[in-house]
Amino acid sequence: MYVYLDNHSTTLLDPQVKEAIEPFVSQHYGDANALHYHASNLHQPLRDAYERIYATLNASHDDSVVATSGVEESNHWVIMNTYFEHIIKGDKNHILLSQAQSPSLLQTAKFLESLGARVTRLPLNSEGIVEAHTVRDFITPKTALVSINWVDGESGAISPIEHIAYICEQKGVAFHTDATHAIGKIPISLKDSFIDYLSFSAHHFHGPKGVGGLYMRKGKELSPLFHGGEEMNGLRAGVLNTPAIIGMGKAMELAFDAMDFEMEDTRELRQTLEEALLEIPDTTLLSPSKCVANTLLASFKGIDAEALLWELNRAGIAIRQGVHNPSSVVFALSRFTTQEEIEYTIKTLKKSIHRLREISGHGA
Amino acid sequence: MYVYLDNHSTTLLDPQVKEAIEPFVSQHYGDANALHYHASNLHQPLRDAYERIYATLNASHDDSVVATSGVEESNHWVIMNTYFEHIIKGDKNHILLSQAQSPSLLQTAKFLESLGARVTRLPLNSEGIVEAHTVRDFITPKTALVSINWVDGESGAISPIEHIAYICEQKGVAFHTDATHAIGKIPISLKDSFIDYLSFSAHHFHGPKGVGGLYMRKGKELSPLFHGGEEMNGLRAGVLNTPAIIGMGKAMELAFDAMDFEMEDTRELRQTLEEALLEIPDTTLLSPSKCVANTLLASFKGIDAEALLWELNRAGIAIRQGVHNPSSVVFALSRFTTQEEIEYTIKTLKKSIHRLREISGHGA
Repeated sequence: MYVYLDNHSTTLLDPQVKEAIEPFVSQHYGDANALHYHASNLHQPLRDAYERIYATLNASHDDSVVATSGVEESNHWVIMNTYFEHIIKGDKNHILLSQAQSPSLLQTAKFLESLGARVTRLPLNSEGIVEAHTVRDFITPKTALVSINWVDGESGAISPIEHIAYICEQKGVAFHTDATHAIGKIPISLKDSFIDYLSFSAHHFHGPKGVGGLYMRKGKELSPLFHGGEEMNGLRAGVLNTPAIIGMGKAMELAFDAMDFEMEDTRELRQTLEEALLEIPDTTLLSPSKCVANTLLASFKGIDAEALLWELNRAGIAIRQGVHNPSSVVFALSRFTTQEEIEYTIKTLKKSIHRLREISGHGA
Repeated sequence: MYVYLDNHSTTLLDPQVKEAIEPFVSQHYGDANALHYHASNLHQPLRDAYERIYATLNASHDDSVVATSGVEESNHWVIMNTYFEHIIKGDKNHILLSQAQSPSLLQTAKFLESLGARVTRLPLNSEGIVEAHTVRDFITPKTALVSINWVDGESGAISPIEHIAYICEQKGVAFHTDATHAIGKIPISLKDSFIDYLSFSAHHFHGPKGVGGLYMRKGKELSPLFHGGEEMNGLRAGVLNTPAIIGMGKAMELAFDAMDFEMEDTRELRQTLEEALLEIPDTTLLSPSKCVANTLLASFKGIDAEALLWELNRAGIAIRQGVHNPSSVVFALSRFTTQEEIEYTIKTLKKSIHRLREISGHGA
């Protein structure tokens, strides 16, 4: 049996998304910015895809959403723009990041430090989130950007992003959130928030790889990262990746529609797994109470996470080792995870942990 | 009848490429950098894809090829690196570009001018190419980068890239070529050249959209553009777009295999079209003798290019208007273009030009 529980790394392409993409892979392959039928027949499907994206994010049509190659490009764009708009000019030089931010942000920030930026990496509280008052405490008149990930990719912890965005708005500081693990997991309503920038990747919510987006609030539009194109109102050069954008629109809609299912059915499966883990002696669960429905971060005393990963892998179960918590493993379910798969995982896990503890002599 | 002659904008996905991609879209969807079977089963197919890319470019395995989201990202990477490595430090500040370079390079260069770069846009000769001695004449001790596109996307003219690369090597200046319209059109052998950087997009040679590459000669590796990933030897962050990379490898191999066909059969179809155009009074052909086999740039006295484009579009024929030569139209064939399609195009073209000239009173 194969069980895929590594849905924080990437996800299965939803068969409905695949079907929606198909005509634009095979038949309607034109450059959407050309002037002939091979372009004009793409306009309505692309508009529909954008409609789905705006609807899912509940974004105003005055705001911009630009399709990028993924969250790494979107994150890079936001942070490099801070460099070109502020750091280089010297009016502001300070960037606030969560210390648990994705490496694409942490490493770009580090690069900017070498160019004169001052970077503060905000601590997490015991629940694994950045608290709003922490952000407020660290903002200075020199702060150009605050960037906090909405949902932690490891523990599933949900940070109070709307509150943090409100504080940044009050202080006149641009606010960005990496919503990689939030889309389809928690309700998002950009119209009702003060979020200036929000980035995401489609392959995290059962969409295609190689495509993502950057939301920019009206009046906060960035200068282009990839200069020189008429595409996307001049905000990103490059022939539109039509199938991927259409797939992302469909995937977003499906993720939105499936949110109730994730919140109930997937959460129940997670709960079943959680209860079984707690039956194993010396188990520590690290996911906090305020956590997305699909995630469980756990460690088992005396067990090396990588050894456990290999043990489960041999049995056909795919999980991930923690990065911030390297002694832990992440179980990340999806709406495609079944009861049977979780039962098999529990059975295998109990056997594996028993075996590994016998080898290491733990509890002997 | 539908006839697609806009192959300089984008191309049909080769059905064989589609087939090669399929298993990695539906089944093998893992993150190639994970540690479980859903990753390890991607390693060999990815290696095979890279082998195909290296073989087609005849690149040394000591050189790097990084898969990007397309030529715009690759171009941006090269030119921005010049900024961070030289312009910002002040040791070198000069960039040489062809004036007919793609907007992604011209506009990024313009952006860098606002940050202190000095940019020279090199003139074309009467054949529409940048001559090697022109490059030599403009290089100064302050020149950090020379960037010339290999094949002009409009006229199909081939610039003497190997010679220019040799001059740059002699002068100690980094050399980049945008090979968008060269792959599969002319032989490329990077082992035998002094090209430091070469960028491309798969959708120009019947591969998938949203993927391309940047070749970097050994010892000339750039710092990452998208920081923070273990992927691609740390050179680009982001979960690998496995299906797209595998598709690009296959597409490159097929383009290489089809080069003889393009050089003979496609060229013959182009020749048929060219001869027919010359039968129309007051036709000017702008593609030079040293030109790729699939391209024909033409203008017709008294005919507005956009009007002709619309007229052909109504008849199901997709072509493009020139950008550098806005009174001209580009006919760009592919290995999928048929004799029947060219005959239909000729018939329609003659009728359309006759009709448009009657309306405008040209030659009356």
